[in-house]
Amino acid sequence: MTGQYLEDFAVGQRFSTGRHIVETVQIKSFAAEFDPQPFHLDEAAAAKSIFRGLAASGWHTAAIAMQLMVRGEFSPAGGIVGLGLEEMQWPKPVRPGDELHVVTEILEVRPSASKPNQGLLKVRNTTFNQKGEAVLSQTVNLLALRRS
Amino acid sequence: MTGQYLEDFAVGQRFSTGRHIVETVQIKSFAAEFDPQPFHLDEAAAAKSIFRGLAASGWHTAAIAMQLMVRGEFSPAGGIVGLGLEEMQWPKPVRPGDELHVVTEILEVRPSASKPNQGLLKVRNTTFNQKGEAVLSQTVNLLALRRS
Repeated sequence: MTGQYLEDFAVGQRFSTGRHIVETVQIKSFAAEFDPQPFHLDEAAAAKSIFRGLAASGWHTAAIAMQLMVRGEFSPAGGIVGLGLEEMQWPKPVRPGDELHVVTEILEVRPSASKPNQGLLKVRNTTFNQKGEAVLSQTVNLLALRRS
Repeated sequence: MTGQYLEDFAVGQRFSTGRHIVETVQIKSFAAEFDPQPFHLDEAAAAKSIFRGLAASGWHTAAIAMQLMVRGEFSPAGGIVGLGLEEMQWPKPVRPGDELHVVTEILEVRPSASKPNQGLLKVRNTTFNQKGEAVLSQTVNLLALRRS
Protein backbone atom coordinates (compact mmCIF):
# COMPACT_ATOMS: atom_id res chain seq x y z
CA MET A 1 0.00 0.00 0.00
CA THR A 2 1.43 3.36 -0.99
CA GLY A 3 0.20 6.83 -0.27
CA GLN A 4 0.24 9.42 2.47
CA TYR A 5 -0.12 8.52 6.15
CA LEU A 6 -1.51 10.66 8.95
CA GLU A 7 2.06 11.67 9.85
CA ASP A 8 2.59 13.07 6.34
CA PHE A 9 -0.19 15.63 6.64
CA ALA A 10 -0.08 19.05 8.28
CA VAL A 11 -2.63 21.84 8.66
CA GLY A 12 -2.49 24.24 5.73
CA GLN A 13 -1.14 21.80 3.14
CA ARG A 14 -2.87 22.06 -0.23
CA PHE A 15 -3.32 19.46 -2.93
CA SER A 16 -4.53 19.97 -6.50
CA THR A 17 -6.16 17.87 -9.17
CA GLY A 18 -6.31 17.70 -12.92
CA ARG A 19 -9.15 19.27 -14.83
CA HIS A 20 -12.42 17.90 -16.20
CA ILE A 21 -14.64 19.53 -18.81
CA VAL A 22 -18.36 19.00 -18.17
CA GLU A 23 -20.15 18.23 -21.43
CA THR A 24 -23.87 18.67 -22.09
CA VAL A 25 -24.30 14.98 -22.84
CA GLN A 26 -22.79 14.07 -19.47
CA ILE A 27 -25.04 16.52 -17.65
CA LYS A 28 -28.13 15.01 -19.27
CA SER A 29 -27.12 11.37 -18.87
CA PHE A 30 -26.23 11.74 -15.18
CA ALA A 31 -29.50 13.58 -14.60
CA ALA A 32 -31.56 10.99 -16.47
CA GLU A 33 -30.24 8.30 -14.14
CA PHE A 34 -29.96 10.13 -10.82
CA ASP A 35 -31.61 13.56 -10.84
CA PRO A 36 -34.32 13.64 -13.53
CA GLN A 37 -35.47 17.23 -13.09
CA PRO A 38 -36.19 19.46 -16.11
CA PHE A 39 -33.43 22.00 -15.38
CA HIS A 40 -30.81 19.22 -15.66
CA LEU A 41 -32.33 17.56 -18.74
CA ASP A 42 -33.72 20.09 -21.16
CA GLU A 43 -32.40 23.49 -22.27
CA ALA A 44 -35.83 25.04 -22.88
CA ALA A 45 -37.25 23.96 -19.52
CA ALA A 46 -34.02 25.00 -17.80
CA ALA A 47 -34.22 28.49 -19.32
CA LYS A 48 -37.55 29.01 -17.53
CA SER A 49 -36.33 27.54 -14.22
CA ILE A 50 -34.54 29.17 -11.31
CA PHE A 51 -31.24 28.12 -12.95
CA ARG A 52 -32.00 30.17 -16.12
CA GLY A 53 -30.23 27.62 -18.29
CA LEU A 54 -29.06 24.02 -18.24
CA ALA A 55 -27.14 23.22 -15.04
CA ALA A 56 -25.46 20.03 -13.82
CA SER A 57 -27.01 18.19 -10.90
CA GLY A 58 -25.21 19.13 -7.71
CA TRP A 59 -24.64 15.40 -7.18
CA HIS A 60 -22.99 15.20 -10.58
CA THR A 61 -20.64 18.02 -9.62
CA ALA A 62 -19.84 16.23 -6.35
CA ALA A 63 -19.16 12.98 -8.23
CA ILE A 64 -16.86 14.75 -10.72
CA ALA A 65 -15.00 16.35 -7.82
CA MET A 66 -14.50 12.90 -6.28
CA GLN A 67 -13.15 11.53 -9.55
CA LEU A 68 -10.71 14.43 -9.82
CA MET A 69 -9.58 13.92 -6.22
CA VAL A 70 -9.04 10.16 -6.60
CA ARG A 71 -6.70 10.90 -9.51
CA GLY A 72 -5.12 14.00 -7.91
CA GLU A 73 -2.18 14.74 -5.60
CA PHE A 74 -4.07 14.03 -2.39
CA SER A 75 -3.55 10.32 -1.94
CA PRO A 76 -4.04 8.95 1.58
CA ALA A 77 -2.82 5.40 2.15
CA GLY A 78 -5.88 3.17 2.20
CA GLY A 79 -7.83 5.50 -0.08
CA ILE A 80 -10.08 8.52 0.28
CA VAL A 81 -12.63 7.23 2.79
CA GLY A 82 -15.18 9.77 3.95
CA LEU A 83 -16.64 9.48 7.43
CA GLY A 84 -18.98 12.39 6.86
CA LEU A 85 -19.37 15.93 5.62
CA GLU A 86 -19.72 18.85 7.99
CA GLU A 87 -21.11 21.03 5.23
CA MET A 88 -21.48 21.14 1.47
CA GLN A 89 -22.54 24.07 -0.69
CA TRP A 90 -23.06 24.80 -4.35
CA PRO A 91 -22.37 28.56 -4.65
CA LYS A 92 -22.71 28.65 -8.46
CA PRO A 93 -24.33 26.37 -11.05
CA VAL A 94 -22.10 24.20 -13.27
CA ARG A 95 -22.81 24.87 -16.96
CA PRO A 96 -22.07 22.91 -20.14
CA GLY A 97 -18.44 23.41 -21.10
CA ASP A 98 -17.25 24.36 -17.62
CA GLU A 99 -13.77 23.08 -16.78
CA LEU A 100 -13.53 21.98 -13.15
CA HIS A 101 -10.65 21.31 -10.79
CA VAL A 102 -10.44 20.76 -7.04
CA VAL A 103 -8.17 22.14 -4.34
CA THR A 104 -7.98 20.20 -1.05
CA GLU A 105 -6.72 22.00 2.04
CA ILE A 106 -5.88 20.21 5.29
CA LEU A 107 -7.77 21.82 8.19
CA GLU A 108 -7.09 19.34 10.99
CA VAL A 109 -4.93 16.24 11.62
CA ARG A 110 -5.94 14.15 14.62
CA PRO A 111 -4.86 10.67 15.77
CA SER A 112 -7.70 8.42 16.89
CA ALA A 113 -8.10 8.15 20.65
CA SER A 114 -9.27 4.53 20.44
CA LYS A 115 -7.59 3.05 17.33
CA PRO A 116 -3.77 3.30 17.41
CA ASN A 117 -3.40 2.69 13.66
CA GLN A 118 -5.98 5.30 12.56
CA GLY A 119 -6.62 8.99 12.60
CA LEU A 120 -8.88 11.67 11.20
CA LEU A 121 -8.22 14.35 8.61
CA LYS A 122 -10.55 17.28 8.29
CA VAL A 123 -10.21 18.83 4.83
CA ARG A 124 -11.89 21.50 2.78
CA ASN A 125 -12.42 20.55 -0.87
CA THR A 126 -13.24 23.46 -3.14
CA THR A 127 -14.18 22.84 -6.76
CA PHE A 128 -13.53 25.74 -9.10
CA ASN A 129 -14.63 26.46 -12.66
CA GLN A 130 -12.41 27.93 -15.38
CA LYS A 131 -13.20 31.47 -14.17
CA GLY A 132 -11.88 30.65 -10.69
CA GLU A 133 -15.39 30.69 -9.22
CA ALA A 134 -16.16 28.13 -6.52
CA VAL A 135 -18.99 25.84 -7.67
CA LEU A 136 -18.81 23.33 -4.79
CA SER A 137 -17.33 23.50 -1.32
CA GLN A 138 -17.18 20.68 1.18
CA THR A 139 -15.77 20.27 4.67
CA VAL A 140 -15.12 16.56 5.03
CA ASN A 141 -13.85 14.22 7.73
CA LEU A 142 -11.71 11.46 6.25
CA LEU A 143 -10.13 8.37 7.69
CA ALA A 144 -6.32 8.29 7.61
CA LEU A 145 -3.95 5.48 8.50
CA ARG A 146 -0.94 5.90 10.79
CA ARG A 147 2.45 4.43 10.07
CA SER A 148 2.73 1.23 12.06
CA MET B 1 -46.20 24.15 -12.37
CA THR B 2 -47.55 21.63 -9.90
CA GLY B 3 -46.18 20.49 -6.57
CA GLN B 4 -46.01 21.60 -2.98
CA TYR B 5 -45.47 25.22 -1.99
CA LEU B 6 -43.87 26.57 1.18
CA GLU B 7 -47.33 26.97 2.70
CA ASP B 8 -48.04 23.24 2.20
CA PHE B 9 -45.14 22.16 4.44
CA ALA B 10 -45.08 21.89 8.23
CA VAL B 11 -42.43 20.78 10.70
CA GLY B 12 -42.65 17.04 11.37
CA GLN B 13 -44.20 16.03 8.03
CA ARG B 14 -42.65 12.92 6.53
CA PHE B 15 -42.43 11.83 2.90
CA SER B 16 -41.41 8.45 1.55
CA THR B 17 -39.99 7.11 -1.69
CA GLY B 18 -40.05 3.93 -3.69
CA ARG B 19 -37.24 1.39 -3.42
CA HIS B 20 -34.12 0.78 -5.46
CA ILE B 21 -31.98 -2.35 -5.43
CA VAL B 22 -28.26 -1.66 -5.80
CA GLU B 23 -26.66 -4.18 -8.15
CA THR B 24 -22.96 -5.08 -8.29
CA VAL B 25 -22.70 -3.94 -11.89
CA GLN B 26 -24.05 -0.49 -10.94
CA ILE B 27 -21.63 -0.18 -8.03
CA LYS B 28 -18.68 -0.94 -10.30
CA SER B 29 -19.79 1.22 -13.23
CA PHE B 30 -20.46 4.28 -11.04
CA ALA B 31 -17.10 3.77 -9.32
CA ALA B 32 -15.23 3.36 -12.61
CA GLU B 33 -16.51 6.76 -13.73
CA PHE B 34 -16.57 8.75 -10.48
CA ASP B 35 -14.80 6.99 -7.60
CA PRO B 36 -12.25 4.53 -8.99
CA GLN B 37 -10.95 3.11 -5.72
CA PRO B 38 -10.33 -0.66 -5.30
CA PHE B 39 -12.97 -1.18 -2.60
CA HIS B 40 -15.69 0.03 -5.01
CA LEU B 41 -14.38 -1.88 -8.05
CA ASP B 42 -13.03 -5.28 -7.12
CA GLU B 43 -14.30 -7.88 -4.63
CA ALA B 44 -10.86 -9.28 -3.76
CA ALA B 45 -9.31 -5.87 -3.13
CA ALA B 46 -12.41 -4.79 -1.22
CA ALA B 47 -12.19 -7.83 1.08
CA LYS B 48 -8.74 -6.64 2.23
CA SER B 49 -9.84 -3.00 2.64
CA ILE B 50 -11.43 -1.20 5.57
CA PHE B 51 -14.83 -2.02 4.03
CA ARG B 52 -14.19 -5.81 4.22
CA GLY B 53 -16.13 -6.38 1.03
CA LEU B 54 -17.43 -4.52 -2.02
CA ALA B 55 -19.20 -1.30 -1.05
CA ALA B 56 -20.91 1.39 -3.12
CA SER B 57 -19.26 4.80 -3.37
CA GLY B 58 -20.86 7.16 -0.89
CA TRP B 59 -21.51 9.48 -3.84
CA HIS B 60 -23.34 6.68 -5.60
CA THR B 61 -25.55 6.19 -2.55
CA ALA B 62 -26.24 9.94 -2.45
CA ALA B 63 -27.11 9.94 -6.16
CA ILE B 64 -29.48 6.96 -5.74
CA ALA B 65 -31.13 8.76 -2.81
CA MET B 66 -31.66 11.80 -5.03
CA GLN B 67 -33.23 9.69 -7.77
CA LEU B 68 -35.60 8.09 -5.25
CA MET B 69 -36.54 11.51 -3.87
CA VAL B 70 -37.21 13.05 -7.28
CA ARG B 71 -39.68 10.22 -7.96
CA GLY B 72 -41.09 10.13 -4.39
CA GLU B 73 -43.86 11.87 -2.45
CA PHE B 74 -41.82 14.96 -1.60
CA SER B 75 -42.45 17.19 -4.57
CA PRO B 76 -41.79 20.91 -4.06
CA ALA B 77 -43.09 23.20 -6.81
CA GLY B 78 -40.11 24.25 -8.88
CA GLY B 79 -38.21 21.05 -8.07
CA ILE B 80 -35.85 19.81 -5.38
CA VAL B 81 -33.22 22.55 -5.41
CA GLY B 82 -30.53 22.22 -2.76
CA LEU B 83 -28.89 25.35 -1.40
CA GLY B 84 -26.50 23.34 0.73
CA LEU B 85 -26.08 20.50 3.18
CA GLU B 86 -25.50 21.13 6.87
CA GLU B 87 -24.18 17.61 7.34
CA MET B 88 -24.02 14.26 5.57
CA GLN B 89 -22.99 10.92 7.00
CA TRP B 90 -22.64 7.35 5.81
CA PRO B 91 -23.25 5.27 8.95
CA LYS B 92 -23.09 1.88 7.15
CA PRO B 93 -21.69 0.71 3.80
CA VAL B 94 -24.10 -0.09 0.94
CA ARG B 95 -23.56 -3.64 -0.31
CA PRO B 96 -24.53 -5.40 -3.54
CA GLY B 97 -28.20 -6.38 -3.39
CA ASP B 98 -29.16 -3.78 -0.79
CA GLU B 99 -32.63 -2.31 -1.31
CA LEU B 100 -32.72 1.39 -0.46
CA HIS B 101 -35.48 3.86 0.28
CA VAL B 102 -35.50 7.40 1.64
CA VAL B 103 -37.58 9.15 4.29
CA THR B 104 -37.66 12.96 4.23
CA GLU B 105 -38.68 14.81 7.39
CA ILE B 106 -39.41 18.55 7.46
CA LEU B 107 -37.32 20.22 10.18
CA GLU B 108 -37.93 23.89 9.44
CA VAL B 109 -40.14 26.04 7.17
CA ARG B 110 -39.03 29.64 6.75
CA PRO B 111 -40.15 32.40 4.36
CA SER B 112 -37.32 34.38 2.80
CA ALA B 113 -36.72 37.78 4.39
CA SER B 114 -35.67 39.32 1.07
CA LYS B 115 -37.56 37.40 -1.65
CA PRO B 116 -41.35 37.47 -1.19
CA ASN B 117 -41.94 34.52 -3.54
CA GLN B 118 -39.37 32.21 -1.95
CA GLY B 119 -38.61 30.39 1.25
CA LEU B 120 -36.36 27.79 2.77
CA LEU B 121 -37.08 24.24 3.86
CA LYS B 122 -34.67 22.44 6.14
CA VAL B 123 -35.16 18.69 5.81
CA ARG B 124 -33.50 15.53 7.04
CA ASN B 125 -33.21 12.81 4.40
CA THR B 126 -32.42 9.37 5.76
CA THR B 127 -31.69 6.50 3.38
CA PHE B 128 -32.38 3.05 4.80
CA ASN B 129 -31.44 -0.43 3.61
CA GLN B 130 -33.76 -3.45 3.67
CA LYS B 131 -32.81 -4.17 7.30
CA GLY B 132 -33.96 -0.70 8.35
CA GLU B 133 -30.37 0.45 8.94
CA ALA B 134 -29.54 4.04 8.00
CA VAL B 135 -26.85 4.08 5.29
CA LEU B 136 -26.95 7.82 4.54
CA SER B 137 -28.24 10.82 6.46
CA GLN B 138 -28.34 14.38 5.25
CA THR B 139 -29.57 17.66 6.69
CA VAL B 140 -30.31 19.82 3.67
CA ASN B 141 -31.51 23.36 3.03
CA LEU B 142 -33.82 23.51 0.03
CA LEU B 143 -35.40 26.32 -1.87
CA ALA B 144 -39.22 26.43 -1.80
CA LEU B 145 -41.60 28.66 -3.69
CA ARG B 146 -44.46 30.54 -2.01
CA ARG B 147 -47.94 30.72 -3.49
CA SER B 148 -48.19 34.04 -5.28
